[in-house]
Amino acid sequence: MTWIVIPAHLDALEIGAGILGTGGGGNPYLGKLIARKFVEEGAQVAIVDPNEVPDDAVVASVGGMGSPTVSIERLRRADESVKALRALEAHIGKRVTHLVPSEIGGSNSTVPMVVAAQVGLPVIDGDGMGRAFPELQMETFTMYGVTPTPAALCNHLGHIAIFNRIDDATTLERYARAVTIQMGGSAGYAFPVMTGSQLKKTVIAGTLSLAIRLGEAVMSARREKTDPVVAVCEVTGGQRLFAGKVTDVERRMTGGFARGVVVMEGFGNDAGRTLRVDFQNENLIARDDAGAVLAVVPDLICLIDSDTGAPLTTEVLRYGLRATVIGIPAPEELRTEVGLRFVGPAAFGYEDVTYTPLRGSYANREQTCNRYSG
Amino acid sequence: MTWIVIPAHLDALEIGAGILGTGGGGNPYLGKLIARKFVEEGAQVAIVDPNEVPDDAVVASVGGMGSPTVSIERLRRADESVKALRALEAHIGKRVTHLVPSEIGGSNSTVPMVVAAQVGLPVIDGDGMGRAFPELQMETFTMYGVTPTPAALCNHLGHIAIFNRIDDATTLERYARAVTIQMGGSAGYAFPVMTGSQLKKTVIAGTLSLAIRLGEAVMSARREKTDPVVAVCEVTGGQRLFAGKVTDVERRMTGGFARGVVVMEGFGNDAGRTLRVDFQNENLIARDDAGAVLAVVPDLICLIDSDTGAPLTTEVLRYGLRATVIGIPAPEELRTEVGLRFVGPAAFGYEDVTYTPLRGSYANREQTCNRYSG
Repeated sequence: MTWIVIPAHLDALEIGAGILGTGGGGNPYLGKLIARKFVEEGAQVAIVDPNEVPDDAVVASVGGMGSPTVSIERLRRADESVKALRALEAHIGKRVTHLVPSEIGGSNSTVPMVVAAQVGLPVIDGDGMGRAFPELQMETFTMYGVTPTPAALCNHLGHIAIFNRIDDATTLERYARAVTIQMGGSAGYAFPVMTGSQLKKTVIAGTLSLAIRLGEAVMSARREKTDPVVAVCEVTGGQRLFAGKVTDVERRMTGGFARGVVVMEGFGNDAGRTLRVDFQNENLIARDDAGAVLAVVPDLICLIDSDTGAPLTTEVLRYGLRATVIGIPAPEELRTEVGLRFVGPAAFGYEDVTYTPLRGSYANREQTCNRYSG
Repeated sequence: MTWIVIPAHLDALEIGAGILGTGGGGNPYLGKLIARKFVEEGAQVAIVDPNEVPDDAVVASVGGMGSPTVSIERLRRADESVKALRALEAHIGKRVTHLVPSEIGGSNSTVPMVVAAQVGLPVIDGDGMGRAFPELQMETFTMYGVTPTPAALCNHLGHIAIFNRIDDATTLERYARAVTIQMGGSAGYAFPVMTGSQLKKTVIAGTLSLAIRLGEAVMSARREKTDPVVAVCEVTGGQRLFAGKVTDVERRMTGGFARGVVVMEGFGNDAGRTLRVDFQNENLIARDDAGAVLAVVPDLICLIDSDTGAPLTTEVLRYGLRATVIGIPAPEELRTEVGLRFVGPAAFGYEDVTYTPLRGSYANREQTCNRYSG
């Protein structure tokens, strides 16, 4: 099915992408405002089911790279990723036919909308993470065999960097990160390029509509005065892990990442219990008083405001916030051996934590990830 | 005049480029070995006078970027700059017709020879510095109006980075430096691209043959048991500033540069005097006991072994070395208002030092730098 984005979708996307951002991924608010302005001015953004994309389509992912803090303090021009896309097209000598989000969690959910509104291309209903992650190699396209380069970066001054002949996305990440820092800490990117056929093999399908449905469910709960936590769990396949009050936040910036720990004391059924969540931009691991792991990356650990269902990012966490911690099973694509190599606990420094999957499935899907069994 | 490189030219170039490296620029020894091997195996490298280059020629500069220390510890493959050149050609959609050294001092004097031997292109007798400098923006091509990008980098793994739409070479330097560090601290580059007409307006002509003549003069003095210092001064237009013994070397690595001070106590006519030379990869300023400036960048401050005329780079300076300090007037291209903005004392942090030119002229040339008077 192909459908056209309306402003209400974008308001819902902001909430859904915020929750799927698992504490990080950047705030989708500014991107939402820009996309909504274009749509209100008449831009048509078509959303396409990946299964309906021709095998020979030329698909590129677009997004923003850099510190979320910078992108809030120095607003984007909104053409950075457009220019990165154009530089990529010039480099490959072909026009791109479809855009795909690399990351549905956080601000990168809105970048493809902003680009699509300007260049008139359709956006794929799907992404490469099903959530947010901090680094380029943590997406399914390159994880499952799409060559990471050519890749293009562009900053607010229109400066272009193109990378080529790099086989592994982890190396690309290092190079692109170094340039992004020199570019002022924020840049738009276009990469990787893949065929429609490659897209269908590597994309986590349906995540754009999932994020919108998630936001709609939260807004509906607010209107109906029902429990937003229940709504979030129903749409995402998630489960309530803990509810309580934030009693301590330890936060430090190291290596360009916001690292830290949030400590919560339980309410209600959780009274007398304590929860500790480690984060590194995104929430990575939730442990109880005894040190038992309740949930760990790549499963999604989402803190939301217990009353409104609003996503709580690691930046806004502070003493006294009443929050519910929801654990959402990761998409199957991230739970394979290959997936865990890139986004399992060890990839974030938890060498001694074994990944124990949360029960259930991402967005209550049937487990159909046999694409990667071979 | 066009002439063909023979192995003896390369041996002389190694010495001449070492002296013109003013203490830095990297050791030309390894590049010399590689170039000589190609030439001995039959490669023909033609050297062309810039005035004989057609106005519509496509000229590109090639060289190596990164820490000289890395390039000695991890030998180059010798195809890094070739691949950077090919990536640049693919990007502009044109074949390059001529190569030009960006920096005649140090190891970048030999890189164009190494590339030319592999790709069969002629090399211009000239460069963009007339000496060595640590950063990309310190060359006359971009200083006098050639657009710095597109620019290409390639490392030993064949990873390519291309920069485009960057107006100032200082910004390009920042981006390229950051990627070079991530690439392992050493990369080959190809940039900028210019027409033959632009080359003729911006090149410091004749410096490749100058470096070879300089090396030949030193070797001749060794054979004839005459004073190599006299030979160096005669060829370069330089003057003896000081002769003595190294009594102290203060050295630290900061910001990727070898910074420090060498202190010398005088011999002969200079007995009882002390000289201090500050360096930052290259020697920047020579001051006497009273703090009076004897010579300052962009004029060349060259330390050579008093007995053999061998260039003394800042890395090899140590207690007890008997050295002569020679001051060589900078090429006129570096002494203009524009030139001093990029390579005058203030560009290296000496805000309060006024540039007082050494008497005489670079390589005893007539002062014909009216190209830049307008």
